[in-house]
Amino acid sequence: MRDVVVIGAGITKFGELWEKSIKDIFVEASLKAIEDAGVDHIDSMYVGAMSPGLFVGQEHLGAVMADYLGVNPIPATRVESACASGGVAFRQAFLEVASGASEIVLAGGVEKMTDGADVTEVLAAAADQEYEVYSGITFPGLYAMIARSHMEQFGTTREQLAAVAVKNHRNGAKNPHAQFRKEVTMEQVMNSTMVADPLRLLDCSPVSDGAAAVIVASVDVARKLHKNLIRVIASSQASDSIALHDRESLTTLNAVVKAAEKAYTMADKKPKDMNLVEVHDCFTIAEVVVTEDLGFFEKGTGGEAAANGWTSIECKMIPVNTSGGLKSKGHPVGATGVAQIIELYEQLNGTAGTRQVGGAHVAMAQNMGGSGASCVVHILEVK
Amino acid sequence: MRDVVVIGAGITKFGELWEKSIKDIFVEASLKAIEDAGVDHIDSMYVGAMSPGLFVGQEHLGAVMADYLGVNPIPATRVESACASGGVAFRQAFLEVASGASEIVLAGGVEKMTDGADVTEVLAAAADQEYEVYSGITFPGLYAMIARSHMEQFGTTREQLAAVAVKNHRNGAKNPHAQFRKEVTMEQVMNSTMVADPLRLLDCSPVSDGAAAVIVASVDVARKLHKNLIRVIASSQASDSIALHDRESLTTLNAVVKAAEKAYTMADKKPKDMNLVEVHDCFTIAEVVVTEDLGFFEKGTGGEAAANGWTSIECKMIPVNTSGGLKSKGHPVGATGVAQIIELYEQLNGTAGTRQVGGAHVAMAQNMGGSGASCVVHILEVK
Repeated sequence: MRDVVVIGAGITKFGELWEKSIKDIFVEASLKAIEDAGVDHIDSMYVGAMSPGLFVGQEHLGAVMADYLGVNPIPATRVESACASGGVAFRQAFLEVASGASEIVLAGGVEKMTDGADVTEVLAAAADQEYEVYSGITFPGLYAMIARSHMEQFGTTREQLAAVAVKNHRNGAKNPHAQFRKEVTMEQVMNSTMVADPLRLLDCSPVSDGAAAVIVASVDVARKLHKNLIRVIASSQASDSIALHDRESLTTLNAVVKAAEKAYTMADKKPKDMNLVEVHDCFTIAEVVVTEDLGFFEKGTGGEAAANGWTSIECKMIPVNTSGGLKSKGHPVGATGVAQIIELYEQLNGTAGTRQVGGAHVAMAQNMGGSGASCVVHILEVK
Repeated sequence: MRDVVVIGAGITKFGELWEKSIKDIFVEASLKAIEDAGVDHIDSMYVGAMSPGLFVGQEHLGAVMADYLGVNPIPATRVESACASGGVAFRQAFLEVASGASEIVLAGGVEKMTDGADVTEVLAAAADQEYEVYSGITFPGLYAMIARSHMEQFGTTREQLAAVAVKNHRNGAKNPHAQFRKEVTMEQVMNSTMVADPLRLLDCSPVSDGAAAVIVASVDVARKLHKNLIRVIASSQASDSIALHDRESLTTLNAVVKAAEKAYTMADKKPKDMNLVEVHDCFTIAEVVVTEDLGFFEKGTGGEAAANGWTSIECKMIPVNTSGGLKSKGHPVGATGVAQIIELYEQLNGTAGTRQVGGAHVAMAQNMGGSGASCVVHILEVK
């Protein structure tokens, strides 16, 4: 496989974008990415989206977006892995350039969630319909069970979960694309409406519209364009049982562990080599569990790490979700994985503004689907 | 890119499989493919499916199928390009092995269409929801407009369209997996119920459940398993405007033309080198147009070619849809593109029974989405 680099990025505001269609936002992000890259064409494109069929009645999203972006007749393929759809789109673009089949590929992600669908029901299609959903559970309930188990097993506290939300809102307040550009206090999180015990409203990522796109290319192309060489030094993906009840443990996400192992091996790096990480904090407990499963903290100590500020930009032990994460930036599910890559791209280019992690040169993104049944991990390095 | 070969195949019966779930049929086809290949593991898998969310309320199909197939924690990704989802799954598996990232990859396709959803409405999600579907048209109507234009422009007749159905049913009668294992007469087609003038019931592919899977691998793996080297010598994909009204011509499918051009170049072959072709005959008119756009017949003469028997197994000018095609074999949309590859695999292995094209060593598969907004073409060769 040959080296692959990220040479451009574009993103829409995340939020309730009622005045724009799914096509509008995907095209907006893609045009920004193409302009940022400075390329005059793309060879191929991938569109990550979880459920445009159920959300807005439109499938065949690769062809739809290629058409509205004005790039026919290039190949355009939609990929889906629930909330990891964006990460998977990036991985497929990486593989296509790595194979030598293409030189310049767009990886985009999009979701339009606020146009009237029953969002909780649509998202539940990422769980096991036959066993989990039929029994009445949806995602807040699934992650609440993970949280309750983590509390029972390791003594994780409500305050520690709240610390994740407080930190992510603090970061998101500095992100111009974030849905919630405001800080929240520990008290606000602790007193917000109960959703699924022990998870409260401010433990949950929001329902969002949004799109994100990046351009990946061969090193030859990047050199001709005089780009920083932001290389994709690892791309890995893993799967786990779709239903929570089939797992040996509720407090370890095996797909995250496996994807991380493969990524560290491929990149020849260790957790301590990372300057920052974007993780899939669909709920605060997810960030706690994932920072453990990625090897940044011992199992059971992720909550303590968050409460101690070890994941803040300032501390620099391992800044987590400098973008604000899903919690504050918003979570248009198909766009999320690509938006994570964009945060890495900005940080590694030194253009993250007040969110900048000084001297960042290696960064990781972790994106997952459902209650962790699929997970994609990427490591990027400027070199 | 390194060479990629097909080393195993598995398929379910196509039809109304009310006693089986979408998971049952995907696992059935995949286990058959794994057994046929003789491999003890797979490195990764792709699942092509158009709309499991709208059909059966289940997204996240990569993770679901990896779980039920018992292959966690391997990467598992769903890809979608409407009715070309299976072809696109095969292409992604090809790219992954070609890149060197994996040695053995499963490419599967599945659709469960008969479990109660409004099938015509779900399939319409492959067209432009905002302009085409909102105006009330669905796929029989879109292809009827293509047929009417072809008749007006080139003098194509109703009898010529019917000849496609008669030939495909004759082939399908010999295919043990086909939904309709029976021949139909010219009179039966001509007198069947009108669906969308000029297309009648027997011009239309049916609503089907079914799954298909193949195993692709590196040449090294195939040699160790003492397999025939059935190489993927071309994989190409193209896109066109999602809506019919945006095209310069209704009688040329530009994505088919472009994908075919790329495939012939990649394989260094010409139409006359093909021993057989599987084409996407979702309606009889589609086979007429596609056999022209792939370069087998001059534009406007595809109907005449079908009526003259030039596309029959017996004639050997260019046997088209020896499997029975979508028309007779059935069209579980996500499975179709993979099922086409399976027909090529059997023909090139010389195991197609009474459908065998003698001496077949090069074969093509053409799979498309919507009214041709996406198209995937593959060429396989035994060598």
